[in-house]
Amino acid sequence: MKTTVSIALDERSYPIDIGTGLLAQLAGGEGLPPGTAALIVTNDTVAPLYGAQLQAALAAHYPAVHQVVLPDGEAHKEWQTLNLIFDALLTHGCDRKVVLYALGGGVVGDMTGFAAACYMRGVPFVQLPTTLLAQVDSSVGGKTAINHPLGKNMIGAFYQPRRVVCDLATLDTLPARELSAGLAEVIKYGPIADMAFFDWLEAHIDALLARERTALAHAVRRSCEIKAQVVAADEREGGLRAILNFGHTFGHAIEAGMGYGVWLHGEGVAAGMVMAAELSLRLGLVDAAFVQRLRALLVRAGLPVWGPVIDAQDNAGRYLALMRVDKKAEAGEIRFVLIDAPGRAVVRAAPDALVREVIDACCAVA
Amino acid sequence: MKTTVSIALDERSYPIDIGTGLLAQLAGGEGLPPGTAALIVTNDTVAPLYGAQLQAALAAHYPAVHQVVLPDGEAHKEWQTLNLIFDALLTHGCDRKVVLYALGGGVVGDMTGFAAACYMRGVPFVQLPTTLLAQVDSSVGGKTAINHPLGKNMIGAFYQPRRVVCDLATLDTLPARELSAGLAEVIKYGPIADMAFFDWLEAHIDALLARERTALAHAVRRSCEIKAQVVAADEREGGLRAILNFGHTFGHAIEAGMGYGVWLHGEGVAAGMVMAAELSLRLGLVDAAFVQRLRALLVRAGLPVWGPVIDAQDNAGRYLALMRVDKKAEAGEIRFVLIDAPGRAVVRAAPDALVREVIDACCAVA
Ligand SMILES: NC(=O)c1ccc[n+]([C@@H]2O[C@H](COP(=O)([O-])OP(=O)(O)OC[C@H]3O[C@@H](n4cnc5c(N)ncnc54)[C@H](O)[C@@H]3O)[C@@H](O)[C@H]2O)c1
Ligand SMILES: NC(=O)c1ccc[n+]([C@@H]2O[C@H](COP(=O)([O-])OP(=O)(O)OC[C@H]3O[C@@H](n4cnc5c(N)ncnc54)[C@H](O)[C@@H]3O)[C@@H](O)[C@H]2O)c1
Ligand SMILES: [Zn+2]
Ligand SMILES: [Zn+2]
Repeated sequence: MKTTVSIALDERSYPIDIGTGLLAQLAGGEGLPPGTAALIVTNDTVAPLYGAQLQAALAAHYPAVHQVVLPDGEAHKEWQTLNLIFDALLTHGCDRKVVLYALGGGVVGDMTGFAAACYMRGVPFVQLPTTLLAQVDSSVGGKTAINHPLGKNMIGAFYQPRRVVCDLATLDTLPARELSAGLAEVIKYGPIADMAFFDWLEAHIDALLARERTALAHAVRRSCEIKAQVVAADEREGGLRAILNFGHTFGHAIEAGMGYGVWLHGEGVAAGMVMAAELSLRLGLVDAAFVQRLRALLVRAGLPVWGPVIDAQDNAGRYLALMRVDKKAEAGEIRFVLIDAPGRAVVRAAPDALVREVIDACCAVA
Repeated sequence: MKTTVSIALDERSYPIDIGTGLLAQLAGGEGLPPGTAALIVTNDTVAPLYGAQLQAALAAHYPAVHQVVLPDGEAHKEWQTLNLIFDALLTHGCDRKVVLYALGGGVVGDMTGFAAACYMRGVPFVQLPTTLLAQVDSSVGGKTAINHPLGKNMIGAFYQPRRVVCDLATLDTLPARELSAGLAEVIKYGPIADMAFFDWLEAHIDALLARERTALAHAVRRSCEIKAQVVAADEREGGLRAILNFGHTFGHAIEAGMGYGVWLHGEGVAAGMVMAAELSLRLGLVDAAFVQRLRALLVRAGLPVWGPVIDAQDNAGRYLALMRVDKKAEAGEIRFVLIDAPGRAVVRAAPDALVREVIDACCAVA
């Protein structure tokens, strides 16, 4: 059981395979980039779960298969850990004919992709995402990065993988909280692009939480289709691609305001989508019923729909300050991704006073 | 007095301006990328010489002009120093509308280009090369990189500048040894692409050493033209671009074998070109007179034509070992850039025994 979504980027086009047991099937070697060696990049949580299986599968296809195990966690998404990948590549004498395999969530994927972009100015890599978030979002589209002490994802590259393989079986071991965080990004695709998908999610959210394979397959597939379409139209984030950041402007403020790692990225996005929907409502773009539907689905998915108080004195002021230094802000003007009508997003600014109202209305007071 | 060479890379095309007093003329703003801020990246040798002049010129064009001064030297072409650029960008709150200006030699240019490639996944940058080597080689073509303890230029990107401005006046302060090292790369273009230019160099080498502006202008211009043509045909080093590495396979072995910084890059390339020419001779591609002409011109340019002994026990063996781990080697097979006929290069392998002979014949015994 395998379906494939294609992402059309001319000579950089690649397939996204979705199915069960796909890691083991890599042994067939079908569609894998040729090379004289493979380097599996993973972390100390995922390595014991799927490392050996992947190693065995790739051994059938490459003369040498090496592995580097990074420490787990967003806190390690920085230069020093990235350098472990370069150390491994150089210690094993890998030349430009090496292929990198990212086995893990978005952190491993982002770092492996950036390492592949930079090693000898670019070697091929394959994404093997093992979190729902990575399968529906981070492994698709070619954004790679590491963090800098002064900002998240500040150093990176647009660099496309040669292939993405989403093995749904790996989601069995994913902690429930991480599954829910991934669902936030799945739900995101409804309001910005496809309300029929949103309807489907309302009907299948319990099946998804129960990790039913057919439901997961559809959710991952439709998410990848939508992301692939947006990315194909705007690879380097000139305009349209910004709609994928629905909920992220508020969400990033939550993550930063709480200290990274306190809220998961998907949790920040969930509460952030509610805020962005509220802002859309107050700008007269959508009605209250839509905001309520979004809120209800997020709650069922196990996600927060209230923002945290990140400053006891001036909560809204702190949110605003953090949003103004967001990577997408332009000369200090915050660009909100709003819902123009259910299923369609628009990027625009909004009056500070209105944004304050929304924050006040959407933040839980302790 | 200004001439312009264009480098044709579709939407990434850019002009290379060559002339005297061009730094000051930047105040006009003509052709500079628009932005809300500029960051000058330079080092502690070049900053006192040309930093203020550039700062003043750019102030006419950007609302804010910042400067970051890196420690001078190839030893600093690594992550920690690169990070000083990111620190400066983030501390000054620079967003994607920033433009980076590389003011210095190849080290500053390579690091600034790589920082521009990675900052927020890519911001524009301008090359203002102040060494002859940077004006005729490193600033043109979009190769950017930093070193890794296990290898030179191992981490980098192909990333084109928006403009290159070669102010010949800056060469006045360049140490004579650095001028000669730059001439090695100028001379290189003759054997690989244009023997008429080689003739011209034989006639004007003294004028170049005397830093006569018209001679420099012609040498820089013709070098950039040849490099631009090669890069336009093969931006990502798929094939043809390799010919620019004439002398570099042996040269890199010299630099690595002596320890980086003992021989300048251009000095290694000079001795390396003699070795590559000798190898071409022994393969029956060129005659002894050609090798002698090359040797004579290099000597007049103040460059070494004998390789150093890098291993007292097994000198040729050590050269071979180092060349086998070169970035351009393929599965341990050394790819030599040889002269097929004066003015035309070819990339091919050669028998170890013959390479040993060449090394034995070309290395000065102490
Ligand atoms: N590149 C992009 O376009 C993009 C988009 C969205 C997010 N991101 C990035 O993705 C990262 C978040 O990704 P994430 O949510 O996957 O986090 P993550 O990579 O940290 O994974 C979450 C946790 O689950 C563990 N894990 C992964 N797979 C598992 C499995 N199958 N079984 C058990 N445990 C497993 C991980 O080790 C980790 O502890 C962030 O750094 C974010 O910036 C990137
Ligand atoms: N990107 C490429 O395509 C490419 C090609 C060739 C070389 N390179 C790289 O370029 C570097 C070598 O470049 P380089 O030879 O310019 O060395 P460099 O940048 O170290 O400059 C040489 C010395 O001259 C000083 N200097 C620079 N301009 C001066 C001036 N106008 N007056 C006085 N002093 C000045 C520098 O501070 C330094 O001390 C190496 O790192 C090499 O890897 C890159
Ligand atoms: Zn996200
Ligand atoms: Zn060179």
